[in-house]
Amino acid sequence: MAYTAAVITISDKGAVGQRVDTSGPAICEILKNEGWEIAHTEIIPDDFDKIKEVFCRCSDKMKIDLILSTGGTGFSPRDITPEATLAVIERRTPGIPEAMRAESMRITPHGCLSRSEAGIRGGSLIINLPGSKKAACENILAVISAIRHGIDMLHSAGSADCGEEKK
Amino acid sequence: MAYTAAVITISDKGAVGQRVDTSGPAICEILKNEGWEIAHTEIIPDDFDKIKEVFCRCSDKMKIDLILSTGGTGFSPRDITPEATLAVIERRTPGIPEAMRAESMRITPHGCLSRSEAGIRGGSLIINLPGSKKAACENILAVISAIRHGIDMLHSAGSADCGEEKK
Amino acid sequence: MAYTAAVITISDKGAVGQRVDTSGPAICEILKNEGWEIAHTEIIPDDFDKIKEVFCRCSDKMKIDLILSTGGTGFSPRDITPEATLAVIERRTPGIPEAMRAESMRITPHGCLSRSEAGIRGGSLIINLPGSKKAACENILAVISAIRHGIDMLHSAGSADCGEEKK
Repeated sequence: MAYTAAVITISDKGAVGQRVDTSGPAICEILKNEGWEIAHTEIIPDDFDKIKEVFCRCSDKMKIDLILSTGGTGFSPRDITPEATLAVIERRTPGIPEAMRAESMRITPHGCLSRSEAGIRGGSLIINLPGSKKAACENILAVISAIRHGIDMLHSAGSADCGEEKK
Repeated sequence: MAYTAAVITISDKGAVGQRVDTSGPAICEILKNEGWEIAHTEIIPDDFDKIKEVFCRCSDKMKIDLILSTGGTGFSPRDITPEATLAVIERRTPGIPEAMRAESMRITPHGCLSRSEAGIRGGSLIINLPGSKKAACENILAVISAIRHGIDMLHSAGSADCGEEKK
Repeated sequence: MAYTAAVITISDKGAVGQRVDTSGPAICEILKNEGWEIAHTEIIPDDFDKIKEVFCRCSDKMKIDLILSTGGTGFSPRDITPEATLAVIERRTPGIPEAMRAESMRITPHGCLSRSEAGIRGGSLIINLPGSKKAACENILAVISAIRHGIDMLHSAGSADCGEEKK
């Protein structure tokens, strides 16, 4: 069975129709090619409470496995996607943004400017992608295969086991 | 004089004897080869309070220099070693998990899934290693020489100094 | 117009004149060569409240674009620059210390020991550099070109935009 994904575009201009969202559809395309089912897409402004609300709704009510955001990870005063993410996740997964930034920095020194965070809320993994279509696609491609294994673990019963099963 | 180390295996199945702990002994072997004295080993379940208790006891009462855990760093619902670690450390040392994950990612893209944390409590350095024997050994070997220097600093009197001593 | 920078040397011995500060002047030299205007320099001891005070003053009162510290990022009991930084920043920029440590680790395995943090307070970007002149220079050179772009964004009106402007 395919895992489900939500792609949330976070953009003041996108939310009022002043900008065409090209990043969201590009991420959806990548996910579909990798066998994921797109369960939800939405465009919202850079608003702290609205970002928290959509993450919680996708996780708690819609039970979506993977929740990706695009946008709001930069340095502009309105960029607060990482802060809203930290406010709703229960367990951080710091290796995912580290891997995405390390990949970005192979492409451009500006890669270190992404403030992306990621973490687990209930049965959902939430990951911030940059707003730029190019960077968002590069970032998700760097971690998509690992993420599938992460969600396998998230849906498993026990802890990651040490040592060997007793025979 | 050799520095002391504790190796704490965190595993529900290991704690009740359903699993043989191979990671703990393998980490001890590496430490001994590097000249460390193993002062304590223990196997405990993935229990938030029990993990905090053993970390605090090894640091506050036993005054152990290096406290390594193995297990509980993944995505499973029971994996809460990093959260228990963050609850007891006083100063984070983020470069250690970054270096371990960067090394893991050279070996497998799944390396980004380790949620390992590390930090200082009193005179002790606490570091989370993954539960898999292979990954735990790769991770500790990536940082063991730097760690010795870190503990030298931790036991020193002053701050890391800027510039040059006055003649 | 050139952006402004403050360089704060954090050193118990430097603050009482027992040590010559070579790191601060070396960082200033690099910044000037890159076209930055040095608006302020200061030497303070490894004191939590004094570090917070100087960061807040440089940001809130002096409106300096980039505030660099050198020193206090190690493991010694007095090293608390990262903790003071986390206490005053409003939004973390984790990719900057990650990029600096990744660069350091290319030079020495001890690079993972820097506990450097970075983040945004109001219109200022605050970044911790190590106390060693060599490491401080290597670290700032690794991110200086990206930082300029980050401050461009910080002074911009909106959020980092997704997709394309409507025609």
